[in-house]
Amino acid sequence: MSADLVITSPANPRLKALAALRRRGVREDKGLTVVEGYEELVLALDSGVVPVSLYHCPELMGDPAAQSETVDRVAELGAEVVQLARVAFERAAYREGPDGFLAVVPSIRSTCADLVVPDDAFVLLCEGVEKPGNLGAMLRTADAAGVHAVIAADPVTDWGNPNLIRSAKGTVFSVPVAADPTPVALAWLASHGIPLVAATPDTMTDHTDISYAGPVAIAVGAEKHGLSEQALAAATHRVRIPMVGQANSLNVATSAAILVYEAVRQRRAPIG
Amino acid sequence: MSADLVITSPANPRLKALAALRRRGVREDKGLTVVEGYEELVLALDSGVVPVSLYHCPELMGDPAAQSETVDRVAELGAEVVQLARVAFERAAYREGPDGFLAVVPSIRSTCADLVVPDDAFVLLCEGVEKPGNLGAMLRTADAAGVHAVIAADPVTDWGNPNLIRSAKGTVFSVPVAADPTPVALAWLASHGIPLVAATPDTMTDHTDISYAGPVAIAVGAEKHGLSEQALAAATHRVRIPMVGQANSLNVATSAAILVYEAVRQRRAPIG
Repeated sequence: MSADLVITSPANPRLKALAALRRRGVREDKGLTVVEGYEELVLALDSGVVPVSLYHCPELMGDPAAQSETVDRVAELGAEVVQLARVAFERAAYREGPDGFLAVVPSIRSTCADLVVPDDAFVLLCEGVEKPGNLGAMLRTADAAGVHAVIAADPVTDWGNPNLIRSAKGTVFSVPVAADPTPVALAWLASHGIPLVAATPDTMTDHTDISYAGPVAIAVGAEKHGLSEQALAAATHRVRIPMVGQANSLNVATSAAILVYEAVRQRRAPIG
Repeated sequence: MSADLVITSPANPRLKALAALRRRGVREDKGLTVVEGYEELVLALDSGVVPVSLYHCPELMGDPAAQSETVDRVAELGAEVVQLARVAFERAAYREGPDGFLAVVPSIRSTCADLVVPDDAFVLLCEGVEKPGNLGAMLRTADAAGVHAVIAADPVTDWGNPNLIRSAKGTVFSVPVAADPTPVALAWLASHGIPLVAATPDTMTDHTDISYAGPVAIAVGAEKHGLSEQALAAATHRVRIPMVGQANSLNVATSAAILVYEAVRQRRAPIG
């Protein structure tokens, strides 16, 4: 385990620059974001991410002997490696109970035009979703379900949001993602012949009543107001998840998971 | 809108007693918990909950003229009504951006023995789930899906946890819930002839490969370690949610939603 630099003081100005990446404007200016956590970093590396720098703290690592291999792996990729004293790392860490790994990586800036999907494309479109935790949960679902791409339409949160990266457990690097204004995203789907299934309470069609075979994009909308009129107008099908309860609302990430896994069920076994 | 008492000082000792209910030990000693938020309170009232006291702040209400009816409704139920100045309410509030409603209500202390379920009982069992937000999300799913009861087996969090109540959007009062040690919960299921479907990665049976018709309990385990050996041993079926991704893990509440809605699909349309 090597280090280009060792920082012991929590007042070191480099830590201030690191903390500034919590702000979206700074992330966009610099074209950088932060991956925190050992597992998340390994998933990012496995997905081909090349960190700009790595801040690590052996004292905080769960298994320093084994995990130092990852420090070496990052160093071999050409990243600057900075070792922090515990007090300095805890100052730099975004999360509670940090595990000694924090990497600065290039932002994810892809748009629909960058996406490459197969003929039977399976896409999740999230329009105007506000909470990073919800987008992160949807990425985990997309990863598990083998979704080919997740598109943030009219995004409120950037894919580089550290809370999103954390709640996604690093899957923002393994699942192809894009961000675009809604009209651009809808035009991309249309030009690729991908039918749109829009989730909305304002329909009599249950989500299990339609076919998800072949190319399909499942669309879910913002936490409070759902999908926009333009997204609903572009939909091939509008579907609802049947609900009988008092509260009559499912979290947007939960709704997306139910829809995505109904599609998985049908796509694995077209008959039944 | 009336009030038995008006508090303007954030240093008032009653607010300290209210804050103490954030601690599980105090909740259990007093047999009380806190419902925060207008919508959550209305759902609790609609579900038959009789508050002990209501703390309200007209200045923070979204629509004081309309929402004051709920203050009167609580007063008519015999609860003590306390009006707080904004600075006092903000001190008492558990959440950011409080909406002027905070009620103290009796704790939920039911056990499996208190549950009444129909012949085709549809039950969700959550064993050892740690995060209040996950239990809350599962209650919202259970409410939407028409689950008859949610059982916390070997609970780590009490049903009165304020973060749970918040994330459940008040559905902890509309969905019948119980808490018991795992052996008691399993014995209750067995004595009622309710087969157990256990979610686990260690099986070759997909969750869509079995029938959820008739009485059924779906069991999910703790975030890190899943279901206990005893729960797995008691299962009629062990099922996995198919996953193809890199991260290879779904959040426990997401998994529960996918399983519960597969059961809903089958129970609504037994053939197909």
